[in-house]
Amino acid sequence: MTSKLLTGLVAATYTAFNADGSLNLDPIGAHADLLVRNGVTGVFVCGSTGEGVSMTTEERMSHFKRWCEVAKGSLKLIAHVGHNSIGDARALAAHAAKSGADAIATVGPSVLRPATLADLVDWCAAVAGAAPETPYYYYHIPVLTQLRFNMAQFMDMARERIPTFAGIKFTDENLMEFANCVARNQTNMLFGRDEVLLSGLVAGADGAIGSTFNYSAPIFNKVIAAYEKGDMAAAQKLMTRARDSVQILLDFGGGPAGKTMLKLCGIDCGPSRLPLRSLSLERVDALRARLEAFGWDDIRCH
Amino acid sequence: MTSKLLTGLVAATYTAFNADGSLNLDPIGAHADLLVRNGVTGVFVCGSTGEGVSMTTEERMSHFKRWCEVAKGSLKLIAHVGHNSIGDARALAAHAAKSGADAIATVGPSVLRPATLADLVDWCAAVAGAAPETPYYYYHIPVLTQLRFNMAQFMDMARERIPTFAGIKFTDENLMEFANCVARNQTNMLFGRDEVLLSGLVAGADGAIGSTFNYSAPIFNKVIAAYEKGDMAAAQKLMTRARDSVQILLDFGGGPAGKTMLKLCGIDCGPSRLPLRSLSLERVDALRARLEAFGWDDIRCH
Amino acid sequence: MTSKLLTGLVAATYTAFNADGSLNLDPIGAHADLLVRNGVTGVFVCGSTGEGVSMTTEERMSHFKRWCEVAKGSLKLIAHVGHNSIGDARALAAHAAKSGADAIATVGPSVLRPATLADLVDWCAAVAGAAPETPYYYYHIPVLTQLRFNMAQFMDMARERIPTFAGIKFTDENLMEFANCVARNQTNMLFGRDEVLLSGLVAGADGAIGSTFNYSAPIFNKVIAAYEKGDMAAAQKLMTRARDSVQILLDFGGGPAGKTMLKLCGIDCGPSRLPLRSLSLERVDALRARLEAFGWDDIRCH
Amino acid sequence: MTSKLLTGLVAATYTAFNADGSLNLDPIGAHADLLVRNGVTGVFVCGSTGEGVSMTTEERMSHFKRWCEVAKGSLKLIAHVGHNSIGDARALAAHAAKSGADAIATVGPSVLRPATLADLVDWCAAVAGAAPETPYYYYHIPVLTQLRFNMAQFMDMARERIPTFAGIKFTDENLMEFANCVARNQTNMLFGRDEVLLSGLVAGADGAIGSTFNYSAPIFNKVIAAYEKGDMAAAQKLMTRARDSVQILLDFGGGPAGKTMLKLCGIDCGPSRLPLRSLSLERVDALRARLEAFGWDDIRCH
Repeated sequence: MTSKLLTGLVAATYTAFNADGSLNLDPIGAHADLLVRNGVTGVFVCGSTGEGVSMTTEERMSHFKRWCEVAKGSLKLIAHVGHNSIGDARALAAHAAKSGADAIATVGPSVLRPATLADLVDWCAAVAGAAPETPYYYYHIPVLTQLRFNMAQFMDMARERIPTFAGIKFTDENLMEFANCVARNQTNMLFGRDEVLLSGLVAGADGAIGSTFNYSAPIFNKVIAAYEKGDMAAAQKLMTRARDSVQILLDFGGGPAGKTMLKLCGIDCGPSRLPLRSLSLERVDALRARLEAFGWDDIRCH
Repeated sequence: MTSKLLTGLVAATYTAFNADGSLNLDPIGAHADLLVRNGVTGVFVCGSTGEGVSMTTEERMSHFKRWCEVAKGSLKLIAHVGHNSIGDARALAAHAAKSGADAIATVGPSVLRPATLADLVDWCAAVAGAAPETPYYYYHIPVLTQLRFNMAQFMDMARERIPTFAGIKFTDENLMEFANCVARNQTNMLFGRDEVLLSGLVAGADGAIGSTFNYSAPIFNKVIAAYEKGDMAAAQKLMTRARDSVQILLDFGGGPAGKTMLKLCGIDCGPSRLPLRSLSLERVDALRARLEAFGWDDIRCH
Repeated sequence: MTSKLLTGLVAATYTAFNADGSLNLDPIGAHADLLVRNGVTGVFVCGSTGEGVSMTTEERMSHFKRWCEVAKGSLKLIAHVGHNSIGDARALAAHAAKSGADAIATVGPSVLRPATLADLVDWCAAVAGAAPETPYYYYHIPVLTQLRFNMAQFMDMARERIPTFAGIKFTDENLMEFANCVARNQTNMLFGRDEVLLSGLVAGADGAIGSTFNYSAPIFNKVIAAYEKGDMAAAQKLMTRARDSVQILLDFGGGPAGKTMLKLCGIDCGPSRLPLRSLSLERVDALRARLEAFGWDDIRCH
Repeated sequence: MTSKLLTGLVAATYTAFNADGSLNLDPIGAHADLLVRNGVTGVFVCGSTGEGVSMTTEERMSHFKRWCEVAKGSLKLIAHVGHNSIGDARALAAHAAKSGADAIATVGPSVLRPATLADLVDWCAAVAGAAPETPYYYYHIPVLTQLRFNMAQFMDMARERIPTFAGIKFTDENLMEFANCVARNQTNMLFGRDEVLLSGLVAGADGAIGSTFNYSAPIFNKVIAAYEKGDMAAAQKLMTRARDSVQILLDFGGGPAGKTMLKLCGIDCGPSRLPLRSLSLERVDALRARLEAFGWDDIRCH
């Protein structure tokens, strides 16, 4: 698997905003340092965790550019260029490639949805074609996009029509479908359900892309290490702890709560943008107390 | 009802593209003439029929501008400024107001979705606030957005938080919810299921916004006229014919087939953009033959 | 439409249980009298309102028998014989026919679901065949059964394969599909969304089957009368009042709250069976107070 | 885990019907022998695989009785007594206990659905109470029942209100929820997605209940053995083969195709009942050919 572009843990990064809602590029340097220091191998920028769809195309471009400068040589960078407007998506793809992204990725269009699998693949091909030298990943997250095409069939068609097709970020529970994708040779399958990572690893995941790796990479890297050593008892025990920490995130509503958890690790990404809502100060305190009671030190980034 | 901004039939216009996929503003003049000539009262520009989400923000702006020039004095113009990026949505709103739009409208954000009704209303308020003198309509179309908040509750909250709130374009089958909105005073309720317009009228619709009015306004105007005269037998008979014509559209896949029907009325809006797919020439011929066999002359715009 | 079996308002009756949960046939006589006195034309027995699926086959049989005796000559009786077990459904069908039911009806099987429309129709044909002289109605209620086959297509196939096929009890919001069924000649279409009855009437409903007619038949009969006279303004005003009364039911959770409303009209059907839960005494009081504040006298059965 | 009632592979048995559709108890003896010979530890009788809901209560009782006689001492027997009618469910529970079943299980009621988790648990408690000495399992299969209550919360409440509560047959992809159940002590968690068994094992499954173990137990037992030895490379390779064999089943529509696969192992369970449809002879031949081409010998029961 060493020849695959993406392995290990890839953090779906949060985007930093100032108090007035404007984009803030300042924390990116320290953010990248934190991730490298904690064994993260790459960053997935402007995805759903990064509120990419809530940003303007210009904001996404300047965000990609800064991340590319910072990540160079230390983190693989996947620029999420998905956009309902194919023109914006292509512009983002071309810009990301020029900025030095290692790969681009897109969700499919989700307001006007493709009627057939072929329409989806052709849409993806049109976007990928704007960055003809850059590996392309499809980002499958039906809970957000309502696009429920079978990914194994997608893969068969994508490999024919998209010269740069590299793999899938698969954020769904259907591990049968995931494993059917893994069984297709020479693809790079990244699992996107951090909370059940071990189940994804045994189904053949090359690595994982997720939001919790921003602040909890250490525990997940221990899970992978135990699994690769063949020590399943240890892997399961570590996975239980990792999963319990994700449950805390979910108990606080997911999404914006993760920005708070990253802030507790030293990187302040500011508020979330509407339609997301930042945690109130009371909820921030409650989350911090819950994490302390849980004992978060063996889990979080340092 | 005469004091309401929108009444009668409002066409959700198609956007014209050239064969190379670029925006084509040329047909707008003739398109507006056709609509006025056939008794359409307004246009809903860059909505889902108009593939608004598939256009760049610049394209939408130039499209709004041209429509505003053409519609001035003859058609009410509602600019659909919905966009997952609140920055783009606000820029579109401000531009539409400056261009002279009579109203703006948005769907809610549909990839990252608001967790609560209050979050949705606050998002809408932020967009509406960029055009503080322009009436704001919410566009409820859960089949596309997956946003299933109760619209009567939305309306109660929107009237408190959005000074310019004017009404709802309601594209859903739930007529109980629709009627509950109608029962709130001083709102403007537009129904969006052309195929059951008469059922919406008896539930209190002030008017309708839909794609089929681009090419089939005459039959729907006859439905309204018969209904307003109290001749229900005639209204139902006309409605049956109107509905049968919509069934033909649906049998050809909806969406892009409507562009073909408009072309048969003399306005060529060119191909659809990915992820939508234009009808093949064979399908165009089959659709034309089907419409001729059905006898389309009493239905369509002339 | 006079030749159609079912017209006007058909009450989907509640089933009476004793405090110990056993079946109670005693209220049926007074229940029937109330319905006849208030202009109800028929009863739909052991449907979803009647908790039919929560009863044993023997209970349903004795319940049908008693209702047939009581309804004879004054109310059309449709016995709902739907059951996941085709053997039970056929036994219920044969028994209902022998007891003198005017018609039988079934939902489709909803745990193991038919893979194709043909499988569903064949299942219905097998049940209908156990009562070969008795008209058969299909009960379409996808919110409960998850069976989302298109009813116009169902109708085309059912008319070929089920000699006794008579029509559909259509409990869904899709009025396009409903109207497409109406357009097929010689069928009997009953609408099942009481709260938007007027929208169903203009779409061609022959009548309605619903739970609220047990206690609110007068207001709905006035809606129908105004509609048939062509006085749409009056019909809409009456419909608004009817709908507001249904909203009260929904605010109290639907289902079991209806038993309370019927009790306020003098017929005590006792508690609901698990998995439904009767209203607490506090909620009963609150519901009574809400109805009094609303002014229920022009609406309810007397 | 040795103190848990159910471990290893439990076959969700098919029910045999004669060509005329009547129940056929004759194959049960040979069926049990096949399962024991191939290392199956128990049988789950009259579940969804067994078309339990398509059988009358009397048929289910005689079926339970025969299976109890045959399984005694060699296979754990779980009688699925779920039924929309609580009276039937209780009668089935009492009868199963008297017949010597090791455990009973139910899905929740799925036409009239409980409004709250407490209502569901109380319904389950009422059924379990009819067999007060017999362990009770809840059968979670939301794709069939639409009951989507969180099982970890269910478990917390069930342990308080159902003295005989033993565990859950969990047939869903949500392994986070599954693992959260495992983390509750002293419960018996059985996984129901055969095709991703290994992912379930690493999430803590005590065993599995599924239809494919009727005919493919050997390959799944090898997966478990490799996993328990800690040889993950072997486990994954075996799992891939097992999964590919399940894909063949799915390609032939699931359900009834499984009866064909069991017949190829020597046990003829006859046709399926409506609403399911047996494979045509052509499809049976195609399935056999596909299995032969795949090389089924290392997988299937002998």
